[in-house]
This record gives sequence, structure tokens and C-alpha cells, in this order.
Amino acid sequence: MNSTKTILLNNRPSGTPTTSDFKISNLELSDLKDGEILLQAKYISVDPYLRGRMTDQKSYIEPFELNKPISSGMVAEVIESNNDQYTKGDFVSGMLNWSEYQIHNGAELNKVDPNQAPLSAYLGVLGMTGLTAYFGLLDIGKPKEGETILVSGAAGAVGSIVGQIGKIKGCTVIGIAGSDEKIELLTNEFGYDKGINYKTTKDMNAAIKEAAPNGIDVYFDNVGGEILDAALANINRFGRVIACGAISLYNKTEQPTGPRVEITLIKKSVLMQGFTIGNYAQKFGEGISELAKWLTQGKLTHKETIVEGFDQAPQAFIDLFSGKNQGKMIVKAD
Amino acid sequence: MNSTKTILLNNRPSGTPTTSDFKISNLELSDLKDGEILLQAKYISVDPYLRGRMTDQKSYIEPFELNKPISSGMVAEVIESNNDQYTKGDFVSGMLNWSEYQIHNGAELNKVDPNQAPLSAYLGVLGMTGLTAYFGLLDIGKPKEGETILVSGAAGAVGSIVGQIGKIKGCTVIGIAGSDEKIELLTNEFGYDKGINYKTTKDMNAAIKEAAPNGIDVYFDNVGGEILDAALANINRFGRVIACGAISLYNKTEQPTGPRVEITLIKKSVLMQGFTIGNYAQKFGEGISELAKWLTQGKLTHKETIVEGFDQAPQAFIDLFSGKNQGKMIVKAD
Repeated sequence: MNSTKTILLNNRPSGTPTTSDFKISNLELSDLKDGEILLQAKYISVDPYLRGRMTDQKSYIEPFELNKPISSGMVAEVIESNNDQYTKGDFVSGMLNWSEYQIHNGAELNKVDPNQAPLSAYLGVLGMTGLTAYFGLLDIGKPKEGETILVSGAAGAVGSIVGQIGKIKGCTVIGIAGSDEKIELLTNEFGYDKGINYKTTKDMNAAIKEAAPNGIDVYFDNVGGEILDAALANINRFGRVIACGAISLYNKTEQPTGPRVEITLIKKSVLMQGFTIGNYAQKFGEGISELAKWLTQGKLTHKETIVEGFDQAPQAFIDLFSGKNQGKMIVKAD
Repeated sequence: MNSTKTILLNNRPSGTPTTSDFKISNLELSDLKDGEILLQAKYISVDPYLRGRMTDQKSYIEPFELNKPISSGMVAEVIESNNDQYTKGDFVSGMLNWSEYQIHNGAELNKVDPNQAPLSAYLGVLGMTGLTAYFGLLDIGKPKEGETILVSGAAGAVGSIVGQIGKIKGCTVIGIAGSDEKIELLTNEFGYDKGINYKTTKDMNAAIKEAAPNGIDVYFDNVGGEILDAALANINRFGRVIACGAISLYNKTEQPTGPRVEITLIKKSVLMQGFTIGNYAQKFGEGISELAKWLTQGKLTHKETIVEGFDQAPQAFIDLFSGKNQGKMIVKAD
């Protein structure tokens, strides 16, 4: 193995990313040094938050560099090992470059077991996606039995798990998604009590009121923008808003504006808390074992949209913004 | 005593209230029944949140009714008592009507001791004002020693106490207020490290950055609007925003809009929490005893703007919105 296909950031996207913002390139691979392993990409996670890393704005995580590989959560196979901790044939998950092959020092990777769950699940329900749903809903939202939870992006990777955890905790769960097919998925497969198709709904405020006549206690927000406004218009006293994602805003080229939230927060003693899953790194073990338990017990189902082919990663990422995925969007790399 | 002067709500104000929104009227006083007490108003608290009760919108507290008395926190003297729990000459604090005299059943009043602190202090530092500063800052803001706290409305009733508690907790405290005189008060009397006069500052974002080069960890917001925007632009990762008041918005006749907050909250894992002091009713005792201790120890100073004359209550309330008060605004009723 002397070289590998790699996907680089070609331009910082303006607005919605296009495939020309990416470039597939051949990268030299050096010889394996002591302590290093050679990895072959198996599954690539594409996630809305990566859009933020494509800008050059400072954030909780460094921006991608131009003409350098994109990276995200991936599952890979150890093809060669000069590291005592890994054997050829091991599977690992971690933040890896979008390269078919890569050399790695073995740090900050987790071994994953293909017999416990399909490899792709370690990027979804048993990976950052599941953990995001778990800690966001339970640690910030603190739902109590009998409360009403509203979830946007409900048929997406995180949302589809949030709803199911909400049901496990004895809540009424209402999901918002962008097609009738997704709404059906919500109620038939993910246990949601009700679904609202925001694309065919004129007055979201009224639709939420109708779906949740007693108001919303917890709002798990994956989208931001006008749907957040409508959720806040229906929030109950002591409501909790989990600011997890704002996919409706990520491609805006100007500072988005909207109704100010502060009076609602004060009048109703509402909490809004933003987070990123890295905050909970110390507790990942707890989260994964709970999620795996529910998965084994059949209390949790998970849905993936698998796109075939390493080269398709940029398009799969772009398709997130038009909601082409149901559940977790994953690229099968080999 | 057959009748008493009372201040009624004459109109629901549109925009900034005017004196014509109030009406001074004579109200009959019936005979004192068993269990009742006759109270004479001593001090009247005027507070920005009363503006919300003058609209007919549902909130955490019932709107005032037209042609009915305004009520707020007051200190009164027991003039006559048919109630075993009160003796002529007792002083009480509680939510009372804006009447020179009123008959009361004695419920939900607290006796206050004029020898422990001046009577007016029970409407300020030892009343709802002090408790709002105490629980908002400590329970929501959770400031850690060495952190930087930004306070808007810093020379006002709540803000002037927040800054002092921040200093007691070992933080750097920066205050925003609306005149050079107030800025001097902040730094000379309330222990603030720095002050920013927002009326003479063009770029609040830059001014906060200059005053807090390491960013803001806790923002105690009494004003909302553009100053909140500038605070959020300087907020640190894991920052906490205490949404206590939004006086800059209370008189707006249209839904105020501004930059959306959700991306900042997510990127920096920021908490925004609205509250009203009633949420902490179970813990008032703890708060008052801490505040009284600091007062006795000389760690806490309190400033009042006392307006003389019962009839002046509406004007004193209106003057809050142009920031005529330093510290707590109180009307001396007799």
C-alpha cells in the first residue's frame, strides 16, 4: 500500500455545500513505524455539525484546514499493526480522516465488537449519535414520567433515538419531521405518539398546540430557527429546551434573526442549554451500556441510511441538509 | 377611617406607561371583622416586572384588573388588629394594594423588625430584590472563584446586589449602566471592578471584550435586547446566562427580534435560564439570613432611591424605564 484515496476540503462552502467544495485526492502512505497501525475505512459517519468545521470560525472544535482531509467518526479495520494494543483484524471506532487507508498511532480509538452489534451501529445508536440523544435528553431535559417531549429532526439520527428514550421514560413524545414517510416512520417504528410534517404545515405554532394541548415540557431541538420559535410558543412553565443542533441555520450566509427569547424564558422560568457530546466524555461508558442494554432488550430500534461507496461521502453529507436520510446517515466505505 | 386613597389601573399601557394609565381614587373602608387587621402603607416597592402585569397576557402571575388597585411588595404598619397574630404597631411586609389604608386577613405577611434594618430594606436588600440577586446569581449562575461576571442594570435594585455577591464569591465583576454617575457608583460603592456606560458606548461588543479580555463566564441579565446580544458575543464555553429581567423590551409594542441565540448556545455549551423569585419561595429563609449576615458584616451595602409621597408611586414606577433610580426605587407612602 503506497497511496490512498482521501477526501480533502477544497473550498470553505458558502451556503449549502456542493461537491466542488470537496476534492478526492491521492495521498502517499509512508511505512508503518513502531507503535503505528494501518487502518482501512469501513464506515464513515456524516453529521450536520461538520458544516461548522468547514467554516474558519473558532468553535469548540478546530476548523478543517483547506486541502487537508475531512475527518469524522468512522469505523475501520486494522490491516497491519506495529502496536501491541491492536491485532490485524481488530475493528476500531474514532475520529478518523476520510481516507480509504490511513496510518494511526492507536490513541483515542475504541475497539468495537462486530458480534455485539453491526459495525455501523457504533457510529449510530452505540456511538456519538446515541450518546447525544441519551445525555441531551436525560441530563439536560430531565424528563419526568407523564411529561410531554417535543423533538425536531425527529426522524434523523439523534431524533429517532431521543423519541424512543422518551417513551422508555414514560413520556408523551411528539416528533417533527419533513415528509409524510418520515412521520409514518416516527409513529410506526420509533414509538412516537404523534408526528407533525413541518413541510406541509402552515402554522407550526398551532400544530404543536393541537398535538400537545397541555404544552411542551421538554423540547429537544435539532433544527433551530422557526421551529424553535413555535416550540417556545408552546413551552410550559419550567420547560427545558435542549439546544443540540440548528441544521436549519448552518448554511445561512447572514446572521439569522428571529423573535427574542428572553421574555419567554423569564415569564415561564425556562431553561435553554446548548451542549456538544464531548462534554460528557467521562460518562460515555455509562451511556453506551444503557443504550446497549435497551438495544438487546428490544426497547430501542435503530434506523440507518447507508450510502455505498467511499467517494459518496461528500454527497451523503450534502444530502443531510435536504433531509434525504432516515435515521443515521452512514457511508459504507469499502 | 371610612375611606382611603387608592391607586387603580386606569388603562392598560401601550408602550411606555404614563400617569394617565393610573387613577387615584377614594375607596370605602368597611368595619374590621374578626381576624382582620387595618394596615397603613409605609413603603411601596416599584419594580419593572409590574409592567408585565399591566398587560392582559397570561404569565406566571395574574394580570392586574382595570379599575382595581395595583399591588406590589410593601411595608405597612398595623393600625388596628382583630387578629391574634398581630398587635397595633407591628410592621409587616407582603404583597399589598397601593392604598394608604387597607383591611387585610393577615395571611402571607411577614413581620419585619425596624430595629434590625430600616423598614425600606425589607423591600430591597432583605426583600425580593436581594433574594432575586442571591438565588439568580448563586443557584443559576453558580459562579466559581476567579470567574468573570457581567451584570446589566448594574446600578439598579437587583444589579447593585448581584455585583456585591459576585465580589464576596471572589469573582471579577463588570457592570453595565446608563450614566457616568451610575458607573462611578458601581465601582466606588458596590465594589464592581469595571463599569461600562452603554449610553455613551457605540460598540458594546467591543467594550465588553475590552473590559473582559478572557470572556464572560456568567451574565446576569436585567435588560435583554442588544446588551444581551453583546454579552453572548463574549460568552465563554460553559457560560451561564441568568435571564432575570428584560426592561429594554417591556414597553415594546411589537414582538422584538434579534440575532438568533441557538448556534452560540450549542457551540459554547451555554446555559440560559429564566426565573422568577417565587420559584425559590421554599428557600427564602436561607437567602434572607445570608443577606442579613453580609449586611451586618458590612460586606453588603445597599442604595435606595426614595421618592416621597404616596401619590408619586405611578411616576416612580414610570421613572424606572428611564433609569432614574440608583439601587432600589421605593416610594415612602406617609
